[in-house]
Amino acid sequence: MAARSARFIAFCLAFLALASAAPARELPRPETFTLRNGMQVVVIPDRRAPVVTHMVWYRVGAADEPRGHSGIAHFFEHLMFKGTRTIPPGEFSRQIARNGGDENAFTSWDYTAYHVRIARDRLDLVMRMEADRMRNLRYSDETFLSERDVIVEERRQRTDNNPGAILGERMRAMLWPHHPYGTPIVGWLHEINTLDRASAEAFYETWYAPNNAILVIAGDISAEELRPLAERYYGRLRPTRDLPSRTWVSDPPSIGPMRVTHRDEKVRQPSMTRMYRAISYGTDTGRQAHALDVAIEVLGGSETSRIYRALVEDQRIAVSAGASSNASGLGGGSVSVWATPADGVSLETVEAALDAVIAEYLRDGPTEVELQRAKSSLSAAAIYARDSQESLANIYGASLAQGESIDDVVNWANDISAVTREEALTLARGTLDIDSSVTGWLLPLEAAQ
Amino acid sequence: MAARSARFIAFCLAFLALASAAPARELPRPETFTLRNGMQVVVIPDRRAPVVTHMVWYRVGAADEPRGHSGIAHFFEHLMFKGTRTIPPGEFSRQIARNGGDENAFTSWDYTAYHVRIARDRLDLVMRMEADRMRNLRYSDETFLSERDVIVEERRQRTDNNPGAILGERMRAMLWPHHPYGTPIVGWLHEINTLDRASAEAFYETWYAPNNAILVIAGDISAEELRPLAERYYGRLRPTRDLPSRTWVSDPPSIGPMRVTHRDEKVRQPSMTRMYRAISYGTDTGRQAHALDVAIEVLGGSETSRIYRALVEDQRIAVSAGASSNASGLGGGSVSVWATPADGVSLETVEAALDAVIAEYLRDGPTEVELQRAKSSLSAAAIYARDSQESLANIYGASLAQGESIDDVVNWANDISAVTREEALTLARGTLDIDSSVTGWLLPLEAAQ
Repeated sequence: MAARSARFIAFCLAFLALASAAPARELPRPETFTLRNGMQVVVIPDRRAPVVTHMVWYRVGAADEPRGHSGIAHFFEHLMFKGTRTIPPGEFSRQIARNGGDENAFTSWDYTAYHVRIARDRLDLVMRMEADRMRNLRYSDETFLSERDVIVEERRQRTDNNPGAILGERMRAMLWPHHPYGTPIVGWLHEINTLDRASAEAFYETWYAPNNAILVIAGDISAEELRPLAERYYGRLRPTRDLPSRTWVSDPPSIGPMRVTHRDEKVRQPSMTRMYRAISYGTDTGRQAHALDVAIEVLGGSETSRIYRALVEDQRIAVSAGASSNASGLGGGSVSVWATPADGVSLETVEAALDAVIAEYLRDGPTEVELQRAKSSLSAAAIYARDSQESLANIYGASLAQGESIDDVVNWANDISAVTREEALTLARGTLDIDSSVTGWLLPLEAAQ
Repeated sequence: MAARSARFIAFCLAFLALASAAPARELPRPETFTLRNGMQVVVIPDRRAPVVTHMVWYRVGAADEPRGHSGIAHFFEHLMFKGTRTIPPGEFSRQIARNGGDENAFTSWDYTAYHVRIARDRLDLVMRMEADRMRNLRYSDETFLSERDVIVEERRQRTDNNPGAILGERMRAMLWPHHPYGTPIVGWLHEINTLDRASAEAFYETWYAPNNAILVIAGDISAEELRPLAERYYGRLRPTRDLPSRTWVSDPPSIGPMRVTHRDEKVRQPSMTRMYRAISYGTDTGRQAHALDVAIEVLGGSETSRIYRALVEDQRIAVSAGASSNASGLGGGSVSVWATPADGVSLETVEAALDAVIAEYLRDGPTEVELQRAKSSLSAAAIYARDSQESLANIYGASLAQGESIDDVVNWANDISAVTREEALTLARGTLDIDSSVTGWLLPLEAAQ
């Protein structure tokens, strides 16, 4: 359920839509207003079909959990379906399904989001139920405990049975030794196992509040039409007084390259990944995060990238290789580079080749052609997103929850287009520093590496 | 000021006193009583001179600091000399000096200790002042801020100017990614810089209390003589109600070997260190920590150890090499192995040789001769400690603050003697697991490693 950011999803989709020039780069600008209790409302009209996407984004995620209680934020992604004073357990999902809608929820370090897509004439129902569970959640001890077991099982399946996930989790813990981004969203197993009701409820009472939420509605509705509904359902909810500021501890400076090797019998194909600490849209100034996204797109974002061409096509030493930036975090970002060696090739060999590609890139920077191709590819994401009600809602919700403004989102593709070679090179050089990196090797149990 | 444990100091001294058989292995058993406010008192009579060692051990240390406020525990090691309602700033130390005493203080993850040695007839003065500053500390904002600068400077000199200390700090952060032992005692620089008075005072009010303190007095006094003094000075202090339990977050299981390399222009001599997570006297059952201490003494505790003989004497590839156990932590321990290569020898070479010594040791375990030598060497520490008033006070204070009982301390050398080859080998095998280790390389800036 650890959602990749909306932006990242949009980037991936962009590869399907490699438009080289953008006729209308800007995203549609939503209408917004704020309720008296502090709840922000964002409306993205889309009249193509009598459908709405209703999302509530809470400005709380795994990074806000009290130390020793990892997993609480994600736990609520489950508990929120367990009923309120007036809605019995499971009824929320049954009502949505019975009315032809579908729902989803996801948790990141920065936010927790609840998502329903439904026919426009059922919006009242959704708003009534969603507002109800923002403040009035009720569940029994049995429900709490059995849902905790469900989460333990979820962790077992998604993380503990997945050597790559285990490795990634620990690489994050090394990259962020102190900052809460080093703690897995799902929680450390031994802490999930002891999550208690009292601390869960304190978390909910504090953070699940209208003044900590953003309502994003995309679809067949205008702000004018929505406002009375928003006031009726959400406007009467009590805000949290003295909402805590989201201040997270930060990391000491890096001191040198870190490495970790994980071996597991389930590994069939060795692979290597390196993560670097990076700035993010939430922490940068000016166009730095844009320049980083462009720089990393050139380095490893596609099959025309430096890394892919060198390792997979020219040298034929890797079956896959690339790089990606994750610059959406409220508290910082990261860049990953990775390679899976071809049969008979060692991890040392692919890592050395990857290092050589990076060194050359940091010396010369992107060519003008590469720069343009990367910018077009990224901008295409924005164009593609215009066509998806859900995408747009996701982009606005995640961006606002991660410290950006509506203007930032609207102008994103223009800002990407404005990135210069020098800006991209400066960000690449500042970020791809081996001294701020963790390199992880994933190997079978008996490999002779 | 991060004190090595009293036991470790005693071990080092033991090399000077390699007694092979112990006529009286047991440490003298102190007299103890508890004041009505919960303060524990331990008296170790020693009539050789009209001198007393007066120590107050608080069961609070760096591991108890609130997240994001690292350095607070150590900060009090400074603030405690800044005066009370009745004692002006600096007066505590001046009084002690004027009366021919000397004083010291030290902070670990597990405890903070305040130490005065003085003539017996000045004990009243010490107890009055020490009791006063347990509850009545007063300092100005200016003092707080200027002392914070002093600590920043202390950190700069001891850690930030010392590449080996920087590396060790980060190796700990990797070994304990979640447990507070991964945070340096002195604090992360950026957190020391923002320590605030309010959280410092909350820390003091909570933890500096008679029901969280152990008074250890060694010297020319009996429990009977001490009791009225203890009641007069400490007995009337208010205990902390609802003293928090010292429950620390624990780490997820290890997933594989970790490495970190630190290069600095100040490094003249490359070196490597590996740390393994281990049990401790505070976390073990039975004689496990004793067996670990014996096993590591055989492996690398002296110039007759496996590691030293192989790397320094036989192969001549290292100028120093060894191993040590730190099994005194309340929340867990560690084992370190290290080597400094001879000129022209690479770190790869010494590390491979070290690995080979460890592999052979884990296969065969210690010989009976090695076992006896290690046990004698460790037991000698206890014999030597009998002769030092300060040593005895340190051993009892640290051990009690770290979760051991007086019996544990009294019987320590006997328990060491009882360790079998099998016990030592089991602990060595359970501990020296590369998958639970961090290896650190320290290199000059331009080394071609």
